[in-house]
Parts: sequence; structure tokens; C-alpha cells
Amino acid sequence: MKIGFIGLGRMGSGMAANLLKAGHEVIVYNRTREKMAPLVAKGAKPAASTAEACAGEAVFTMLANDDAVAEVAFGEGGIVASLKPGGIHISTSTISVALAERLAEAHGKAGQHLVSAPVFGRPEAAEAAQLSIVAAGAAPAVGTAKPLLEAIGQKLFAVSETPKDANLIKLSGNFLIATVIESLGEAMALIGKAGIDRAQYLEILTSTLFGAPVYKTYGALISAGKFEPPGFAAPLGHKDIRLVLAAAEDLRVPLPIASLLRDRFITLLANGGDNLDWSALATLAERDAGMRQG
Amino acid sequence: MKIGFIGLGRMGSGMAANLLKAGHEVIVYNRTREKMAPLVAKGAKPAASTAEACAGEAVFTMLANDDAVAEVAFGEGGIVASLKPGGIHISTSTISVALAERLAEAHGKAGQHLVSAPVFGRPEAAEAAQLSIVAAGAAPAVGTAKPLLEAIGQKLFAVSETPKDANLIKLSGNFLIATVIESLGEAMALIGKAGIDRAQYLEILTSTLFGAPVYKTYGALISAGKFEPPGFAAPLGHKDIRLVLAAAEDLRVPLPIASLLRDRFITLLANGGDNLDWSALATLAERDAGMRQG
Repeated sequence: MKIGFIGLGRMGSGMAANLLKAGHEVIVYNRTREKMAPLVAKGAKPAASTAEACAGEAVFTMLANDDAVAEVAFGEGGIVASLKPGGIHISTSTISVALAERLAEAHGKAGQHLVSAPVFGRPEAAEAAQLSIVAAGAAPAVGTAKPLLEAIGQKLFAVSETPKDANLIKLSGNFLIATVIESLGEAMALIGKAGIDRAQYLEILTSTLFGAPVYKTYGALISAGKFEPPGFAAPLGHKDIRLVLAAAEDLRVPLPIASLLRDRFITLLANGGDNLDWSALATLAERDAGMRQG
Repeated sequence: MKIGFIGLGRMGSGMAANLLKAGHEVIVYNRTREKMAPLVAKGAKPAASTAEACAGEAVFTMLANDDAVAEVAFGEGGIVASLKPGGIHISTSTISVALAERLAEAHGKAGQHLVSAPVFGRPEAAEAAQLSIVAAGAAPAVGTAKPLLEAIGQKLFAVSETPKDANLIKLSGNFLIATVIESLGEAMALIGKAGIDRAQYLEILTSTLFGAPVYKTYGALISAGKFEPPGFAAPLGHKDIRLVLAAAEDLRVPLPIASLLRDRFITLLANGGDNLDWSALATLAERDAGMRQG
């Protein structure tokens, strides 16, 4: 298929490379032009504008936040204005439920389709085509997008015909990950201050009830205490908690732990967390316990 | 080996039965005498008092809380007064770190040994000898207890020579489980109120990042909405959060999520939760969201 890919950050670069590897014709676009070079070296065609990236049957977006996606979608020469009728916008960014709804409406009016397909996985998973993808949208559009999504992920879940459902699932998943990070941080501060070996504690957890990738991955990151460079930066984690709280407020669902996490992220950002991985959230419990400075 | 077993509730009955099955001579004792009958039918010897249950090389306790353990250990004809020198008290109950410390001291003075060996697993796991056990105590005592613990569990972790370390690990593990219950309750209330299929949502979680027994077990319990009879009753969950907070206060480690969970348990108990499984904690988010009455 002939497709576009807009947004070549750490996640998008890996995903676009895997689409090329699967044999698709990929037109790439990134605001910072230099990031296009490695993909062009792998056979991608560089686009001079977002409009040029919309010349194919589908266009992916993988951008940092709502503002970036809205600009690329609704701006002059944007996706809504440029994609041909019947074309599919595959939105893989973690955006708000409200923006997904707005996108679906605008694409619908333009005779296009929106497939919301947010991904679970850090940059290494994107590079290795091992993302988990939750997709929602009109069945024929999801069907067309399927081989593309299978080229970038190892697991694909088609959940409903309403695009925003996938975004809510993704946001609530990130809420659960942040909960694991914070609770592990608290438990490990307690265990550590008691003088118990934290590596052995983690081993006990992950070889019993807590034997899941989320505990293994974040337990290892917290144990190592290595939060730079960020795989997923703290401001993005904060953004996702804000978005899940916004969606929950619209639906009138109080989320006490998410509210607590919002304050924890603000504390992290207020104390030098801007360039750290979001797992640095786990350091706050140690700091509160007087176990580390700054 | 000739051993005693004090406390034949849902957990203790299964554990004592597995010790019998492994060929040990087991003297059982329970305050409510009727609970001894099924074990006696399987070959156990009934004791008329706690003192009689202390006639062997080791004695297990599996009781509901600190008060019950303290009474059996320190009371007249209790374990400290009755166990022979060199005898081992294998304490498998989830008790406070402070009581574990007090027990270790008293047994030490009496020339006996304490092995703290709290267990992870619900009654079905106790019955099937599939508990995970965290053991701590003097190395020779843990060595003697090892074949007994292996008869009741599938995984044994010997963590340190200080008994109370095992109790802190157990309490912090229960804190992490309660965190999973509450956060899943919040996420599933949000997903459910948005009209998204909750079973599919759980399937996505547990087949990706959250593929651990804790999410599968509690996700299924929450989905089914079946909280009676309790496998682990809400008041016990509340007790464990209180105990982890007490240990954390002694060590000066603030635990924001544990503090939140404490209030959630109080809310559950104030609203008819006394005889429900602790996973009923997950219903509070739905109730707050106006999705269920009472």
C-alpha cells in the first residue's frame, strides 16, 4: 500500500521503519526535517508538507500531544483537507477522547475514515514491531488498516466501531501503568528503608502474583535508578493522567488514584523531572522518606 | 516430623491437610473444636489445648490477626511456655512487624526459634498446596522448616535471618494487591460507564502488559461481581493496610496510595462490606460514579 507517516520521534521512527520493511510505500513527514533522513535512507519518500504525506490510501500520525495532532489534522494543508475521499487516518498517538471525537466527525464530513489505534510499548518495542495496538473505527476501515497495524505490532485488538473507545482504553491503561510505578516506588522505599534486599523483593513479586511485563519492566527501571534518557518522558505521563481525568470528568467517574497520581507528576515536574522517564515517579516515595536528596 | 498446627480456618485447614498428606504427624488445635474433626478424620491427632499442640519439634500458627497470635503465643499454656527448647514456631499468619519482633525476642529468650513464614494465596491455593511462602529466621531453623513449608507451598523464598523481614514483605505485597484491586475498580468503572465491553478490556490488559495472576484473579472476581463468600474478607484487607501503614510510620516512610486505600476500606466497611471479599473494594468506584446503589 501507499501510505504516509507523520511524526518521526522515537516511537514513529521505529513504526515507519517496520512499515517499510513490510514492503509498503511510505511517504514520511516530520516538522524537524533531519529526522526524515534515516527513513529516507531505508527507502521512504520524503514529503515537503503534511499534504504531500496524504497522497496515499492511509496516513499515520504519531505525535506527542493533542495540539500537535490537531495542527496536523485541521491546519492549512492538513490531513482533513488533503486526504482523498475514502482515505484513512490512522491515529496512533495517545490523545484525548474529546479530540478523537472531533477528528472522527471532521473525517466523516470529508468522506474519510478515522481509525484510532493507540499503541502500548516503549521505543524498543516500536523498533522491534512488538507493540500492542488497540484499534477502533468503522469495520471496513479497520479491515484495511489491519495489515499495516500488524506490520508494526505483535498484538492487535479491534475493540469497537467508535474510534474514541480505543483512546479511552489506552489512557486508562497508562493510568494503570502509572499506578504500578507509584505503588512499586512506595513499596520499594519501605522495603529499602527496612534494610531488605530490593532486588530479591522484586524477584519474589515477579515470580509470583505480579509476574507481568509491567512489574518486570518498571521494577527493573526503578531498581536501576536510571531515568535518562527517557523512554517515555514524565511530562507525557503527566499529560496522560490529565487526559484520563478529563475523560472521567466528562463521564462523571471519580478516580481517586488518578487524582493522587496527578499531584505526584506535578511534584516530579516541579523537582527537575522534565527530562526524566516517567518511572522516576517512583523516586518520590524515597525522597519523602528522607532516603535521597533533591 | 512431629508437628503441631494451631488455627484451622479456611487457610489453616488446607495447609494442615497437606502436611498430613506429606506424611508428617500433625497435632491440630482450634478454639472452635468442631473444625478439628475433618482433619482428625484424615489422621491428625486432636489437641485439648495449645500446650498439647506444642509437643513436637515445630508448631504452625495460622490465625486471623495479631491478637489471636499473641494470645496463643504468650497466654497461659501458650507456645512460648510450652514448646521445648530448640523447638520452632512457624508463624504463617499475616501479622504486624512489631508482633513478629516481639515473638522473635520471646522465643529467643526461651531457647526456641521463630520462623516467620507468611503465605501468599487464597484458600483454594492453600488446599492445592500452591501457596507462595516468604520465610525468614535463623538459617538452621529455616532449614528444618523447609520440608514442611515445601509440603504446603509451590514456591519458597528464604529472605533473611530476621523474621520480621518476611512479615514486611508480605504486608507490602498485600498493599500492592489492594492497589491493583482499587485501580482496576476505577479503570473498569470508567470503561463500563463509557459503554465499552469490560470483559474485552480485561482481556486486552491481561494478554499484554498486565498478564499476571493478580490482574487475572482479581479482574475475574470484579467482573463477576461475586464477593460472597469471601476468600479473603474485607476486614482482613483493611487490617493489612493498617499494618503496612504502622510499619511504614515506624520506619518514617509515607505511603500515599496506602493512605488512600485505608480510607477506601473504611468506606467499604461502613457500607456493608464486613462479610464481603476484599475485592469488593472495586465496587466503590462504580458506586461513586452513580452506577450502582448501596
